[in-house]
Amino acid sequence: MSKIEISAQDREFMRQAIRLSAESVANGGGPFGAVVVKDGKVIAGRSNSVTLDNDCTAHAEVNAIREACRVLGTFDLSGCDIYTSCEPCPMCLGAIYWAHISRIFYAADRSDAAAVNFDDDFIYQELDKPLSQRSTPLIPILRDEALKTFQAWEAKSDKTAY
Amino acid sequence: MSKIEISAQDREFMRQAIRLSAESVANGGGPFGAVVVKDGKVIAGRSNSVTLDNDCTAHAEVNAIREACRVLGTFDLSGCDIYTSCEPCPMCLGAIYWAHISRIFYAADRSDAAAVNFDDDFIYQELDKPLSQRSTPLIPILRDEALKTFQAWEAKSDKTAY
Repeated sequence: MSKIEISAQDREFMRQAIRLSAESVANGGGPFGAVVVKDGKVIAGRSNSVTLDNDCTAHAEVNAIREACRVLGTFDLSGCDIYTSCEPCPMCLGAIYWAHISRIFYAADRSDAAAVNFDDDFIYQELDKPLSQRSTPLIPILRDEALKTFQAWEAKSDKTAY
Repeated sequence: MSKIEISAQDREFMRQAIRLSAESVANGGGPFGAVVVKDGKVIAGRSNSVTLDNDCTAHAEVNAIREACRVLGTFDLSGCDIYTSCEPCPMCLGAIYWAHISRIFYAADRSDAAAVNFDDDFIYQELDKPLSQRSTPLIPILRDEALKTFQAWEAKSDKTAY
């Protein structure tokens, strides 16, 4: 990776994400915020609402990505950057890859999150293990039956791929 | 991990997930389905709606977990199992960990998904790399400012942790 120059605008976008994280703590949400930026403009900014919305997937990054998709009317956020107050967990990093986001700016990291009792680092460690050694069992079943759906998908001429 | 016995009921739950995946292809969605089960009952079943909903996070597992959270009124799905027609991608696996789901049954796997041009395996490979070698750059910035939010979170006596 070539050295990336951090600009004053990058710092301003990150400060918006950090402000969202601080407001979230004040409002009873989790201590995380994220903004999605395209062409130098913030198009979505959200905080973590797991406990407020009773939704374990409602991390700041996922919320901001979903909002950006709504705003732009697309599932493809190519050309967007994300600024998140903490390094994305595996769920959020996966969402960022599916979104085709270009660059990830983060402030605190997974060890900082672990220090205030969030599971990000634990989940990263789990993903590093072979499936058979994970704490949550992964059990294969009926693969042949599921493959029929993939064959139907392959054969479909008018599908929308992503 | 001890050997897990697969029951006729497990196969029936998985067949529900596979049916959802097949219906999704017919309806123009992605070829994936998932159900969340608690106490022997399906409490949520959803298919992939990334392209139908213009939401790159709308994988079958994330959709089913979000629905299960709504149905149960909680962000904690402890005691639930998930049956998914394809091995969860890192985003969905992360969501499953955050949900505290007990067991993951899957049918097709990441290589099957790669064979029909989905990025699951690519994203797993990315997560295996050091941050500096990823195709999507991860850029640290303003950590000290973000840590103030974590300090506020730590100091908050009435917080809802997760």
